[in-house]
Amino acid sequence: MFKYLVLTSIFSSLIFGQNPENNSFNLMPYPAKITAGNGFYIIDTSFTIEISNFSNNRLEKYSSRILRRISGKTGMFFKQDYVSAKNKVENPALKIAVKREGFLKDYEDESYRLIITNNSITIESETDLGAFRGLETLFQLIVSDASGNKFPVVDIEDEPRFTWRGLMIDVCRHFMPLEMILRNIDAMAMVKLNVLHLHLSEDQGWRIESKIFPKLQELGSDGLYFTQEEIKYIVNYAGDRGIRVVPEIDIPGHSSALLTAYPELGSGPGPYKIDRTWGIKTPTLNPTNTKTYEFLDKLFGELTPLFPDAYFHIGGDEVKDTEWKNNPEINEYMKANGISDYHELQAYFNGRVLNILQKYGKTLVGWDEILHDNMPKNSVIHSWRGIKALMKAVREGYKAILSNGYYIDLNQSTVFHYKNDPLPEGNDLTKEEKKRVLGGEATMWAELVTNENVDSRIWPRTAAIAERLWSPQSISDVRNMYERLGKISLLLEESGVKHIKNYDMMLRRLMSSHEVSTLKVLVDVVQPLKEYARHRTGPKLTSFSPYTRIVDIATADPEFARGFNFLCEDYNNSKNKELIPLINNYLNLWRDNHALFLQISENRPVIRDGRTHSLNLKRLAENGLELTIMIEKGEKVSSQKIKVIEQLIELSKKESAQCELAVITGFEFLLNSVKK
Amino acid sequence: MFKYLVLTSIFSSLIFGQNPENNSFNLMPYPAKITAGNGFYIIDTSFTIEISNFSNNRLEKYSSRILRRISGKTGMFFKQDYVSAKNKVENPALKIAVKREGFLKDYEDESYRLIITNNSITIESETDLGAFRGLETLFQLIVSDASGNKFPVVDIEDEPRFTWRGLMIDVCRHFMPLEMILRNIDAMAMVKLNVLHLHLSEDQGWRIESKIFPKLQELGSDGLYFTQEEIKYIVNYAGDRGIRVVPEIDIPGHSSALLTAYPELGSGPGPYKIDRTWGIKTPTLNPTNTKTYEFLDKLFGELTPLFPDAYFHIGGDEVKDTEWKNNPEINEYMKANGISDYHELQAYFNGRVLNILQKYGKTLVGWDEILHDNMPKNSVIHSWRGIKALMKAVREGYKAILSNGYYIDLNQSTVFHYKNDPLPEGNDLTKEEKKRVLGGEATMWAELVTNENVDSRIWPRTAAIAERLWSPQSISDVRNMYERLGKISLLLEESGVKHIKNYDMMLRRLMSSHEVSTLKVLVDVVQPLKEYARHRTGPKLTSFSPYTRIVDIATADPEFARGFNFLCEDYNNSKNKELIPLINNYLNLWRDNHALFLQISENRPVIRDGRTHSLNLKRLAENGLELTIMIEKGEKVSSQKIKVIEQLIELSKKESAQCELAVITGFEFLLNSVKK
Repeated sequence: MFKYLVLTSIFSSLIFGQNPENNSFNLMPYPAKITAGNGFYIIDTSFTIEISNFSNNRLEKYSSRILRRISGKTGMFFKQDYVSAKNKVENPALKIAVKREGFLKDYEDESYRLIITNNSITIESETDLGAFRGLETLFQLIVSDASGNKFPVVDIEDEPRFTWRGLMIDVCRHFMPLEMILRNIDAMAMVKLNVLHLHLSEDQGWRIESKIFPKLQELGSDGLYFTQEEIKYIVNYAGDRGIRVVPEIDIPGHSSALLTAYPELGSGPGPYKIDRTWGIKTPTLNPTNTKTYEFLDKLFGELTPLFPDAYFHIGGDEVKDTEWKNNPEINEYMKANGISDYHELQAYFNGRVLNILQKYGKTLVGWDEILHDNMPKNSVIHSWRGIKALMKAVREGYKAILSNGYYIDLNQSTVFHYKNDPLPEGNDLTKEEKKRVLGGEATMWAELVTNENVDSRIWPRTAAIAERLWSPQSISDVRNMYERLGKISLLLEESGVKHIKNYDMMLRRLMSSHEVSTLKVLVDVVQPLKEYARHRTGPKLTSFSPYTRIVDIATADPEFARGFNFLCEDYNNSKNKELIPLINNYLNLWRDNHALFLQISENRPVIRDGRTHSLNLKRLAENGLELTIMIEKGEKVSSQKIKVIEQLIELSKKESAQCELAVITGFEFLLNSVKK
Repeated sequence: MFKYLVLTSIFSSLIFGQNPENNSFNLMPYPAKITAGNGFYIIDTSFTIEISNFSNNRLEKYSSRILRRISGKTGMFFKQDYVSAKNKVENPALKIAVKREGFLKDYEDESYRLIITNNSITIESETDLGAFRGLETLFQLIVSDASGNKFPVVDIEDEPRFTWRGLMIDVCRHFMPLEMILRNIDAMAMVKLNVLHLHLSEDQGWRIESKIFPKLQELGSDGLYFTQEEIKYIVNYAGDRGIRVVPEIDIPGHSSALLTAYPELGSGPGPYKIDRTWGIKTPTLNPTNTKTYEFLDKLFGELTPLFPDAYFHIGGDEVKDTEWKNNPEINEYMKANGISDYHELQAYFNGRVLNILQKYGKTLVGWDEILHDNMPKNSVIHSWRGIKALMKAVREGYKAILSNGYYIDLNQSTVFHYKNDPLPEGNDLTKEEKKRVLGGEATMWAELVTNENVDSRIWPRTAAIAERLWSPQSISDVRNMYERLGKISLLLEESGVKHIKNYDMMLRRLMSSHEVSTLKVLVDVVQPLKEYARHRTGPKLTSFSPYTRIVDIATADPEFARGFNFLCEDYNNSKNKELIPLINNYLNLWRDNHALFLQISENRPVIRDGRTHSLNLKRLAENGLELTIMIEKGEKVSSQKIKVIEQLIELSKKESAQCELAVITGFEFLLNSVKK
């Protein structure tokens, strides 16, 4: 632990110190335009905020929260208690000048200008939403040094590149309580995300209270669902932070929980039950049954007023035709109504659902599968399939949102998501078509997470996605992104998200001790298997499995491993021998850790599956140290030695404990550096 | 950080290793009777639970949660998903045999017997409440070693010493959200506490929704209050864990927030406003106004049905007579009705409130001040004044609860609370009178805490209070208590409480870095000023102050400091020179830390107030090292040197940064050891 920290901080100053101009502002997402000035605005206890123009309740509350957050961060006792447009203050430190209330809808103006001089701060914006974004930028700008707490003199003109910057949270596979949603809304606001998509129905659970159809939650949720009061609270809480809430009721597939409550609406004979396993399931609503539409009409009539947003997401993905094939009545209905195949049957279903939603004033959003001639052009296609599907949709006149490439449950690297652009360079879309690409949305599917570790799957990687969706396309330097990511990650936990603090808690649980350093050395450099590989190894995972093991603590793209990988890459590129001692620090740590790991795992069966990676890491480190000794001595490395290390690297790539070693890249660079 | 952990673990094995017989079971509260056997019950993936006799929904849920918690702790994939009395399992690992449902009331049977053999586990109890207590004991018994995860063979017969084992949470001075209450209910259940007392009204806020008098929350809460749905959720959640919920509406004083909404009920001219400062305030209900009772009648008519518990707490403490003195009408009324003084006036008020509560089937609880001839004997006196007041009450025929000595907001040591007994040895109460001492209640007043650090004020110290209230009086070994406390503290965080994880988070915020070790070395050995001393130094504290500074992170009776103090005490007693190197480890750490602290605090104004203690700590360490060198060499310490160190110790006792140094005792022992 102690060593870890020293290593990364040495590393960080060495590597990132080379790009001071990129590194001068720890902002994420990076603003569209930023002009640095000289000097600072010094914060003192007379710091006050004034809303000088238009105001409303949520702007007062947002400003008051920022006042308190600056106070909390600096520990300073401000004279102002809260910000109220009614109570004018003398010589305000920060003046907020907003023209009008913003609407929570596509293309709304979220731009702002933030001007900090030596003796004044102003935020100007068209809408209060713009002011919210600017206030978060201001908060990120706090620095402190011997002269005090302060903001740098700067002039920022900023606006988002995309109007839809979303985070989907699946509260079905594992239920997430209200508090999880609230803390993540606060974190979203910090990185200027503006759409919370709640995935509310699944095979594994129905998660929203219906008063008309109470069996939905009574039989379909294990008692784990949001009450309508909680939904209202969420919508209001998000709205206060300029964040839209779009609900999803996934139909006609993904409906085991719904059909557990109302089996008569199913396409199969039933009975149904809440599914406890993962995968694509067959229970499907019956699109040929009038009662299905009567049910949906009443249900949507009840649920749509809870969500003021114009959009309503009906899912529509991964519909299996098993039940349809096996149901003669459905096939007869299709024949009688000229429905040629099951894709057409789903389109027919969607058409009728569309009519219901239109009656309630809602615009339909659905996953790729809903794309069909019968969908009106104001529908929104949510693409999980990829950029091609997205482009097809916008060419056909639909609005579209990209989620392919933003599946944060799949443990991809941050840079993988960062490079995933809803409007990639060189695309041949027209200006109109481009405008219909609303943006993107990170999707937090919840099969393999619980309320304990879910934040560590969302953050900090989603901050990089937020930057891709907010900042100009030209902001794309990967090293610089990672540098800023480390800093925003620390700030994010002040919003309440638990990605850092629960990491240590989970280590302590497995160790039954405060002393977690040996386990941490290993967990810091492994990552959960990517994509869907974890389902193909280890015990079968279900709703009730323990999600408390090494693989559940380990994070995608771990910061510590990255430090080593970058160092080795830099050495390979530069052959700068000053880097060798830094590399050796890592190698010594890993070489020595294995014996300790064997010791601590002896009496702790739960961590014993980490031994393979620990051993591989030790062997890699030993061989790495041999290499760095030869590098320092200027000796040539034999081709035999190179072959041995290559084999060891290949061996170390194998999965174990549902994890992979995250430092392979580094060793490959190190080895490569001695090959030439 | 790294050093810290090694130090404590060495310390712990050395000191506590001396009492293996006391130390064999990491249980808190310690059971009434425990008979150790030989060997273990080995947990494997076929581990199942069966409810073999009486069952109900909450017993099924409790058992299912325990199943999942054992799975989470061991990382084992159990075949059983959840426990249902309907689904019988073959060869259950754990059989739960309960006779009947328990009632959430005084003197209910919470006893249980837990028998673990090599191949079976049984919990037998009169009520489901007893089974809950037994299941928590079982969970605390999990150990693991090379042979696997297991429970020791043991026979436990256990029952509580007191029927009222409470925790009061003040959700008024700083509001605590629903999630804080829930996580603390889970933690309470782990240590067998059974009463949650919610302090819901104060000068600083009204925290419970009224639909009849909505201005209470609209004008009296800043929007921070529990809805009635949330209250129901809390009551249900607590009830599922065998925990009663007793609400408190504090009248006639402590009523600024109430009177902000309904000033016409006040004894003064008004207008009133929510108070943002701390202390005893004057706004008081008018006991001579008929409208006051009409209001309370309607309000209690609305609120009492939300709380099924027989008791309703009306506060009644700290009523200032300022407004009464200044109101001629009140004084005329008193004259006309033969009310002799203001104490009688409050008694008159209480009498009328009592009538209202009796109408709604409630028994009245109030703080010491309500004690008066007109109170019926079934009322409960809640003693904040002390053991004398408590004894007076039970002698007069009242039931009574002790909170004096359990004020966990006052940063006293764990042992201070642990030795505070509601029925001290040598008391001369009759058997009947003793029985009327219901028990005790830890009180978490919330002036100086927020949702971030409140858990660190409650836990782990409240676990020791729980033991005082549950376990036999004879369980009183302080060292052994502290040993077990460290272990229960780690287990407690698995319930979700944040006393450990937010400590590090708050350090990271002040450091803006993962690297917190230097700051931690200091914060680990300081503690917030005790009792009310913090209000007399430093900036004036209000609702809106930053509670994020060193003093807010530091905890009462810090574990690390205790380690040093015990070592020095042991050396002083034993003169065992083997302890000297261990003492030196601490001293070296502290001597070297100060230079680093000066560095890190240079650019972080928020932590600069820690420099005085850091410097004193360094000087103490330097002098301590001189002493230990002389001890090892067998040299005599000059009286001049002793005087210098004595002066330094006196100097170091001074408060700074609203904290005191927590290692003074250790240095005093060390110095004392060379005096003789």
